[in-house]
Parts: sequence; C-alpha cells; structure tokens
Amino acid sequence: MIVVIGGGPAGRYAALRLGHAGREVLLVERGSIGGQCLNYGCMMVCALNDAARHLEECRRFAGAGIMHGEQMVDFSALLAGMEGVQGRIRGVLDRETSGSGVTIRYGSQAHLEGRRVFIDDEEVEAEAVVVATGSSPLIPDIPGTGLDGVHTAHTLPQMAALPGDLVIAGGGIQAAEFAYIFSRLGCSVTVLARSGFLHHLDPRLRRIALKELEGVEIREHAPLTGISGTSRVTGARFGGDRPGEIGADTVLLAAGLVPNSRMVDGVEKGADGRIIVNDRMETSVKSVYAAGDVTGGPYLTPVARLQGVVAAENILGIERRYHPEGVPQSIALRTHLAFCADGETEGLELSIPGPAGPGTFWSVPSGDTGMAKILVGREDGRLGGVWAASPGAGIIATYLADAIRHRRTVFELDGLLEVHPIPDGVHGLIGYAASHLREQQK
Amino acid sequence: MIVVIGGGPAGRYAALRLGHAGREVLLVERGSIGGQCLNYGCMMVCALNDAARHLEECRRFAGAGIMHGEQMVDFSALLAGMEGVQGRIRGVLDRETSGSGVTIRYGSQAHLEGRRVFIDDEEVEAEAVVVATGSSPLIPDIPGTGLDGVHTAHTLPQMAALPGDLVIAGGGIQAAEFAYIFSRLGCSVTVLARSGFLHHLDPRLRRIALKELEGVEIREHAPLTGISGTSRVTGARFGGDRPGEIGADTVLLAAGLVPNSRMVDGVEKGADGRIIVNDRMETSVKSVYAAGDVTGGPYLTPVARLQGVVAAENILGIERRYHPEGVPQSIALRTHLAFCADGETEGLELSIPGPAGPGTFWSVPSGDTGMAKILVGREDGRLGGVWAASPGAGIIATYLADAIRHRRTVFELDGLLEVHPIPDGVHGLIGYAASHLREQQK
Repeated sequence: MIVVIGGGPAGRYAALRLGHAGREVLLVERGSIGGQCLNYGCMMVCALNDAARHLEECRRFAGAGIMHGEQMVDFSALLAGMEGVQGRIRGVLDRETSGSGVTIRYGSQAHLEGRRVFIDDEEVEAEAVVVATGSSPLIPDIPGTGLDGVHTAHTLPQMAALPGDLVIAGGGIQAAEFAYIFSRLGCSVTVLARSGFLHHLDPRLRRIALKELEGVEIREHAPLTGISGTSRVTGARFGGDRPGEIGADTVLLAAGLVPNSRMVDGVEKGADGRIIVNDRMETSVKSVYAAGDVTGGPYLTPVARLQGVVAAENILGIERRYHPEGVPQSIALRTHLAFCADGETEGLELSIPGPAGPGTFWSVPSGDTGMAKILVGREDGRLGGVWAASPGAGIIATYLADAIRHRRTVFELDGLLEVHPIPDGVHGLIGYAASHLREQQK
Repeated sequence: MIVVIGGGPAGRYAALRLGHAGREVLLVERGSIGGQCLNYGCMMVCALNDAARHLEECRRFAGAGIMHGEQMVDFSALLAGMEGVQGRIRGVLDRETSGSGVTIRYGSQAHLEGRRVFIDDEEVEAEAVVVATGSSPLIPDIPGTGLDGVHTAHTLPQMAALPGDLVIAGGGIQAAEFAYIFSRLGCSVTVLARSGFLHHLDPRLRRIALKELEGVEIREHAPLTGISGTSRVTGARFGGDRPGEIGADTVLLAAGLVPNSRMVDGVEKGADGRIIVNDRMETSVKSVYAAGDVTGGPYLTPVARLQGVVAAENILGIERRYHPEGVPQSIALRTHLAFCADGETEGLELSIPGPAGPGTFWSVPSGDTGMAKILVGREDGRLGGVWAASPGAGIIATYLADAIRHRRTVFELDGLLEVHPIPDGVHGLIGYAASHLREQQK
C-alpha cells in the first residue's frame, strides 16, 4: 500500500496517478478534498472576484448611462452560494479520485516519524509515502490576532457580514486580489504592506494593478504591528517610518503561507518548515516523497499537481524530474494580470495597450483595455517573457509559457492568425517583433 | 502611386505595409475607416454582446439570491455609447494609417475599368491597385425588404428603439450572435433558418449554442419568403414544409454577405460577384490586386488583414503567398464558442465539460461551464482540431490554430503548465491524449 497524506492538488494528483497504475493507495485527508485551491484559495478568489467584477461592471454601465438601476450584493448569500458550488466540485473530485481505485479516509490525521507512518496514532505498513500536507496562512507574531474580526483566507467563509472598514495585511498577490474583491463589494479597504506593494511585478503590470485598485488605500513599508480591540477588532497598528493606527472592524491576514510540516518528523526541513526534496520529489528518507506547498513556494496549484505526478511516477519506477522554469502566474483583479518569464532581462522589449475585445469594449473610453508586453532575444528571436493584462490573459500566459519553455522564437510563432476580436495584443506583438528583427538582421 | 480602394481590414493593412515600406499610397474610403469589422461587424457584436452578457449575469446572480435589484438597458444610450467608442477607435486607426505616410481620401468613390483607375470619375495614374471594397449584407429578393423596421447589421445602429418581437433571418454565426444579443436585451426573438441552424458546427458546440440561446425560438428549414406590413413591419412569412407567418415589429436580415465588386469592371469574377485571385492576391488584370471580403469568404478580419499584407508584399516584390488552412473562428454568445480544424475528421477524439474558472464559477450549478474537445492523430499524435466553449475560448483557438498549422503533436505540447484557475479544459486534454497514446503505443 502507498499512503498519500493530504487531498489537495499535489496529493490528489499523486493518488490519481498511482490509482490509474493499479496500485493500492490510501489517501488520508483530515478536512475536505481539494485543498486550499478549492476551499480557501483559487476557487474562492474566483467566486468572489466574479461577483466583484460583476458589481464593477454594473457601475461602469450605469456611469455610462447605458444601464439603469442598481444591483446590491447579499454577502451572506454570496458566501453560502460559494460554499454550495465548492461542495459540488468537492463531489466531482471525490468521485474522480475514488473512481481511480484510491481509498480516501476523511477526518483522519496522519503523521510520520522518519519511515514510520501513523494514521490516527495507529501505525500502518506503507511501501511508500507521499507527504502533500500543503500550507497554511502565516499568522504574524503580533498582539491581537485572536480577536473577533481577524481573518485569514481559511476563516473568510465564516465572516458574519461584509466588513465596513477592512485592513488587509500583505503586499503580494493575495493581498491585491482580496483588496480588489472587498473594495468592489463595497468595503473601505486599506492595505498594509510590510515593504513595497506588488514590488516584484513588472512595472507596467503594477501600474495597471494600481489603476484597477483605485479607491483602495495602499500603505507601503507599513508592517502590521498589532491589532486593537477588547473582544472585537477596532483598529490596526502599523510601523515603518510613519507609524500609526487606523480604525477597522475587520483585519484580513494575507501575508503569505507556511508549509504544514509539523506532522512530519525525521525528514530534512528548511528553516521555514518546508520539506526539502530533490527533483524527483524524494525527501531525505528513502521511500518518503513530498509534493506541493509543503515543499515550499511558489504555492501554485499546477506546480503542486505536477509535483504530485512526478512523485507518483518515481514511486512507479518511471524516471521523471520536476523542472521549475517557465511557470506562468496571474493576479485576478478587474482584468487578469498574467505573466511568465525565463529570467532573462535583456532583449527587445515591446509593449502596447490592449486592443478592445470581449469584456473590454466598454473600457475603451477610460483606457482600461489592458496591455501586452513581450521580451525577445535580439540575436535569436527567442521569446523570453510575456506579460498581459486582459480578460483571459491567463490563457495567453499558459500557451506562451509553453513556447518560452520550449525556447520557441518569434520567427516560429510569426503568422499567428487570431480569432477576432480577442482582448490579446500579444499575438500581434510577436508578429511585429519578427518583422522588426528581420529588418535589423538584413 | 499605389491606389488602395477601401479602408477596412484588408485595405488598411495593405496600405500600412506599403506606407511602412516608403511607397506613395492613396487610400480611398467612401465611408468610415475600419470597414464592416469596426463599424457593423466584429466590434458592434462585441459591444452589444458585452451588454447582453452583463444583463444575463445580472439575472443569474439575482436568480441565485446573491444580488438584489435590477439593471435595465437604455437601448438608445447603448447604441450612442457604442458609436462613441467606435468613433474613438476610428480615430486611432486614422492616426495609425496616416502616420505610416498613407494619404486617406474619405468620401470618394473609386472604380476600375480593367487597369484604369477612376476616383470620383477622374482617372488617376497608379502603378498598382489593391481592391479591398469588402462585402455587404445579402438582401434576399423577397417582398417587403424596404419596409420600416427591416434592418441589416449596417442599419442596426439606426434602430429607434429595442424591438419587441424580432425576427432574424439566417442560420449562421451572425444570426446566432444577434439572437443571443437581442434575447438577452429583452426582446422576443425568432430565428428563421433557410436550412439547418448552425448545421456546420461541431455537434457538441452546437448543443452548447442551443443551450445558451434558451428562450430564442429557432425554426429550421423555414426560409423567409416575405415581410408583411404597409409602411412598417407587422410580420414575417416563411416557407418550408410547414409555412406560416409570425408577428414582428422588426426583421433583421443576417443571412450572409455578398462581395462589393460592382465598381470593378474588366477583372474576372465568380458567380456571386467575388473577384477571383491567386495565392498572391493577383486578379486576372496585371498590377490589380484584390484582398479581403471582395475575394469571397470566409469573411474574417484576420484573413482580410493577412490578404492585404500578402497583396502589399507582392507589390513590393516580396514573394509571399496566402494559405487558407488552420483559420480559427468563434461565435460570441454567453461564452465564446471557438474552433479550428485542419479538415481531418478521423482520429482520437477527446472531450470534457469545461472546468470552472473566471466568468464561469457561478455557472457550475447549471452545468454551463462550457466544454473542450480535441482531435488527435492516432499514429503520430498530431493535433488536428480544437473546439472550446468558454470565456476566452478565442484565445485558446488562436494559439492552438498555430500549433495545428505547424503540425505540432500532443507529445510536443504535453506538459502545458496553466495559470490556475482558467476556464480552459483543452490544455488538460492535450496532456491526457499524450499519456493515452503513449500507453497505446507501448
């Protein structure tokens, strides 16, 4: 028997791969199948963002005099509806996983002591183990995190009402996504970023992010130092050069994730608790594999899934290695801000405003149709990076990440014939880059 | 001097290419720059579809109890707003075209007599001519087409009010797109299709189209035979096996396009009036080229643009040929229905329901998250076709059309790492097909 600990993307894909290969697999999941991705991450952001974008669109059409009347959100119904859809998707995932021959044991706790596996304190024999226990929101070590009204993504579904004054602690993608959601749902939102806000992001994309977050107060270099209140939150204190306090009825901690590795002893770990693995997803203990968030960032579902499959295939004796390059990423605001780069920073850089297409036509007057940017090797024409802001930019980044990983050139990609209209300027830039480089090389 | 007749996608791209090459170019445009695409086609559908989808989304959220209140459309404001945005885009196109050194003469009529070029009846010297006069809506030869309330896409912007009972004549993509738009804007819509409705479409996509057109009455094999009324439309008569008449205050003719070639004499034409060209876009008369809709279907903007560039490059002495294969297409309904195929019909066919992603999360309960389908060569793994219904499906079809044209295999495309979540099941199918074929070939 092979024991897989954790039913999130990494564990589930490992179990599915092993199940399809006819192996006996026990998947131990202490909570719900689907992991953070389905329950507190990607799909929650997707659900809430769809509602937030809809409300922004209502206001845009009303502002243009094209639609009359107003839609108002019922926040409790929104959360209940979201939970309903998540429940349906959990059902699909459960059936798919069980259907591959995997036994799922819900509500059980597993732990490891080196090579020894315990489920609810009972030792079991396992020929191999995949640790896919995921990650949890980072709770900063400051006063007041236990007050009513302090949330992480994991407790957000239990919010009793839409916040009035919300403070979001964090300066990364998750903080930006929640700031968009809650501001468009009608809250007054302040973001407290320890250092810069989205400071690793391409400057053009960051400019679009800031425009799409209009109305959100963003304080950079202002780390959350404490949460005020007796039983319930009344304010948030921040440090930095100009420390202060702001009133708030709700604080959302969105300052990062930490690997869930407490239940694993005897394998080598990093300082942040992540389990150290090689590119076969092997830990320091023979036949103990780890995959997904428990091995550390970038904390992305497709990466976790792939690592799960790599672990499974190595257990099956198939040589397979995980290579981290060319991973596309996105930020869900009004548009999607998506990007993928191979790490090169030199080359021909081309960018244009996004063309109007589905979901952006009515943004032409405000210049909010997004943007497209590529980075191309001047000598070889190799596509080194893509950045796009538009509805569907995640799809652009997905297919062009493949081109980046395969070191395809703009000459090979030249002649892209698009469906028209689409809100994608990237395909046009590729053709332009190819012509430009051909001229230069004459 | 080179004369380009028509400022739509074909003429404009031809003129731009010649202008960038430093040639003296006169672009003659009798109406507005941008052709049908901007003024009566793609961008009009985009503008109206964005509003229609928004209203459907309002109803979906209200139906789920998540939003309260109603938005209602002001149709006149919608049309006026659309015209405003189109005007802005016309300004952009005018500046871009003029900026490349092209002289644009608006409001003039050009005609050709073999090799002789006349502008407003005055003969001009031209070393070469590009005929890019586009196409016009087909007006069927039946009684009543001149009544008030009978429209084509070209007169739609002059509709005085939202129709109450609208009859759309046509069974193709344009008829489907307008049926979606007007039904979601609140009209009662009947479609009269001469033969089948969307009968060339992949059956799975067609099923989704029919679901997304719920509420529209679709009559197949019911050709429009006459429009009733004295000064204004009161009904539409149809033939077929079960002929009849239905009441209507508005009739929209959306039954196809015919090439605009009346102003061109002395060049070889097809029975439908299209100018016959070879793959260099040369007509039967030396130095007279034609590009875009005037050369016949598929009446698509990216094809017209490419043909314009091919004509221009051949004028410049650059060997360039137009190859029509692997052209992606789409239908804009609630989702985009997009597709591209190389013509092969045999192979491994895989399809799945669309996964939930941005714009589809709240469609999970009704099973409206779309779908993905691919066709793959059983022996070589070559991607032969892709069909997708989802927001952003046009982007999927754009990048995978390139893979289809380059005869890429699912083995080359395997390992696509997506941005998560995206409403794209195709990338997953590609990986699945690769695994499946590898197993089979063991």
